[in-house]
Amino acid sequence: MDVKIRVAKKEDCARLLDLVYELALFERAPQEVTVSLQEFEEAGFGVKPVWKAYTASLDGLIIGFALYYIRYSTWKGQRLYLEDLVITEAFRGKGAGKLLFDRLIQEAQELGFNGMTWQVLDWNEPAIKFYNKYEANIEAGWLNASLSKEQITAYQI
Amino acid sequence: MDVKIRVAKKEDCARLLDLVYELALFERAPQEVTVSLQEFEEAGFGVKPVWKAYTASLDGLIIGFALYYIRYSTWKGQRLYLEDLVITEAFRGKGAGKLLFDRLIQEAQELGFNGMTWQVLDWNEPAIKFYNKYEANIEAGWLNASLSKEQITAYQI
Repeated sequence: MDVKIRVAKKEDCARLLDLVYELALFERAPQEVTVSLQEFEEAGFGVKPVWKAYTASLDGLIIGFALYYIRYSTWKGQRLYLEDLVITEAFRGKGAGKLLFDRLIQEAQELGFNGMTWQVLDWNEPAIKFYNKYEANIEAGWLNASLSKEQITAYQI
Repeated sequence: MDVKIRVAKKEDCARLLDLVYELALFERAPQEVTVSLQEFEEAGFGVKPVWKAYTASLDGLIIGFALYYIRYSTWKGQRLYLEDLVITEAFRGKGAGKLLFDRLIQEAQELGFNGMTWQVLDWNEPAIKFYNKYEANIEAGWLNASLSKEQITAYQI
């Protein structure tokens, strides 16, 4: 496959959100995707961009992407946080994910981040196998906790 | 206790790092704290601040703090990420943590975040009990994955 990697542009956002939704389905949580296209575009290409993404294309069709933002750790300093790495189902296992992930490592080298971090579902064996090839440190024991926008809004101080 | 909550200042950073280290000891990972005071100050009070914190003080002594930054989710948009919430051991269980956490919820209300999120260790029962009072959603099944700065630097594209 002659896969091309490039920085995502604003006009890619609708396609990226389709892939976000495909990933959420795969992760068994499609109802959790509540962001709008407008919010997504604004966060990536507005006055104060918070995320950056690379796309993988084949014959002009975006078949996957990797999206990151900078995360701050009191232990480690600034790290690249890989929010999403997704290759659409029909094109998995053909090396596009590796091209994207390698591009992120290069980005982390170039920008001098103090590490890269992300999360993976404990039943997602193909993904864990993929990350193991990079000798990533994969650690259990942490629970994700959250309050929703509705809970925050309703809370009486 | 007459605990005062205020926004952290640059001159608080050394004390905050002491408390970060105390938390890392409690979380059985003191070797993981590799950030320097200078990096920490720069990240909070430099050209492009990435974190903000509130301190809890008693008679002028900082007994705890809550530190957050903005996290971007492709599912949810911008959320407050609570990186650290720590009360020094001698002052736990006396309400200072609640004051800090309530202040964060207020911040999330004021700044219009789409949620609050954080992580808690699965064996940290007092913390889980504390978050349960807020009816936080606490979810297992995700593994934390990372590459260190050394791994990134050594990687050959």
